[in-house]
Amino acid sequence: MTENDSRPVYFLSDSTGITAETLGNTLLTQFPDGNFHRTTIPFITNVEQAQSVVAAIDAMAARGLEPLVFSTVVGPDIRLVLGTCKAMVVDLIGTYVDELERTLGKVASGKPGQAHGLGNAERYKSRMTAVEYAMEHDDGQSLRALEKAQVILVAPSRCGKTPTTMYLALQHGIFAANFPLVEEDFTREGLPAPLRPFAEKCFGLTSNPSRLSQIRTERRRGSAYASLQQCGFELRSAELLYRTHGIPYLNSASVSVEEMAATILQRMRLRQ
Amino acid sequence: MTENDSRPVYFLSDSTGITAETLGNTLLTQFPDGNFHRTTIPFITNVEQAQSVVAAIDAMAARGLEPLVFSTVVGPDIRLVLGTCKAMVVDLIGTYVDELERTLGKVASGKPGQAHGLGNAERYKSRMTAVEYAMEHDDGQSLRALEKAQVILVAPSRCGKTPTTMYLALQHGIFAANFPLVEEDFTREGLPAPLRPFAEKCFGLTSNPSRLSQIRTERRRGSAYASLQQCGFELRSAELLYRTHGIPYLNSASVSVEEMAATILQRMRLRQ
Repeated sequence: MTENDSRPVYFLSDSTGITAETLGNTLLTQFPDGNFHRTTIPFITNVEQAQSVVAAIDAMAARGLEPLVFSTVVGPDIRLVLGTCKAMVVDLIGTYVDELERTLGKVASGKPGQAHGLGNAERYKSRMTAVEYAMEHDDGQSLRALEKAQVILVAPSRCGKTPTTMYLALQHGIFAANFPLVEEDFTREGLPAPLRPFAEKCFGLTSNPSRLSQIRTERRRGSAYASLQQCGFELRSAELLYRTHGIPYLNSASVSVEEMAATILQRMRLRQ
Repeated sequence: MTENDSRPVYFLSDSTGITAETLGNTLLTQFPDGNFHRTTIPFITNVEQAQSVVAAIDAMAARGLEPLVFSTVVGPDIRLVLGTCKAMVVDLIGTYVDELERTLGKVASGKPGQAHGLGNAERYKSRMTAVEYAMEHDDGQSLRALEKAQVILVAPSRCGKTPTTMYLALQHGIFAANFPLVEEDFTREGLPAPLRPFAEKCFGLTSNPSRLSQIRTERRRGSAYASLQQCGFELRSAELLYRTHGIPYLNSASVSVEEMAATILQRMRLRQ
């Protein structure tokens, strides 16, 4: 395959580029067979930078397929320059701001991307505090302050507790702890003691035995821990525990952390 | 302020709602004086759910200001229903997909939101591995496998190393370690020994003395650690260390983790 077979895609921003990437990638998932070569150019904050970006895009356009450009740049003068490039330009601000101004009866501020800046300082601080909390309470390390948790993820080892906890903290500012279920937890009656006062905050994760065995094998090849039999036993026991104690749960085998987080927020009613 | 003063905003999705929130919130930051009441409704996957969402939006519309709706729902039948609500509807797919189909010469798949699903399994797995790596290498806990790091964040305590590391891992799949600079590091010659083989992977964070003192005070009020004098000394020493060893650095005092991550990716040339 030559370079010319892939279509250049640019995500342009006057800030981090997160919105441009999110917007563009969401639209591109509608074209799963497409062969795209992605470039993010953040922090385009003046006309001179915009001109050199246009030159780079036009050079690419001359060599092959028409590029796609997803831009969230706000400044009218920079947008004007970017709009001249030889590409299909999706200009988020240009598309929607006029209509929003009419509906809201207000004029847009025209200030460069604030969406992923400090923005609401209180909300930002609560996200950072939540990350700290998640680090301290990962994998049952600290059982202090479990009463501060908004949700406690419970699962056997390697079902996705840690990244989901981190995502809930970092993206949503949720105080999330997690607690590993180990073999002894399945032989005793009831919930593990540290969880008992907090049953209503627990959310369980499970997986498929073969998927879990595969993940554990990457960590400890050939171990009993990674065996299909052990994985099956732990998952069946965990699901029984969840059902017995009315703990909602989710199979993590074929969903992303983003999807798990969205489901947990919804089922635990943690959306603000 | 009565409830009627705030304008209802809905983020609607057939998947996690992340793109709808990102898109909508980016547009709303252009109206910083607006008083918005935000509701995310993810996983709208059939017409019946769409009808009940429309009923909820219309009930809100009847009580006050015209709602704003940001939707990334893909299915045409669901979009048709959502389009009937008494609100200003920003329909991401409806707005752009026709033009993309023409440019790409392909028909959109019409499959519900895949943008935050498992998608590219390789890429997803590398993000999860990166989170694991970041957890193991947080705060200099483990100096094993520093050679695997794509970037090592270096800074005095409480300058934002940990959340930035997590963000780089979780969002960008970057193998990021971090290493705390402590007083002894400033009295010795050269870089701290564990970093010496990896100077070109280091990225420094700094802050403002007053900001750092404020953050440290929240953790240990009245301590020497939190004093303005100590914070000033550590920050000056850290910056001198960065400059002496050609380590790029960034002041974290008034930027978000998203902005730090975007800057680090750009300056360390870590974008794919």
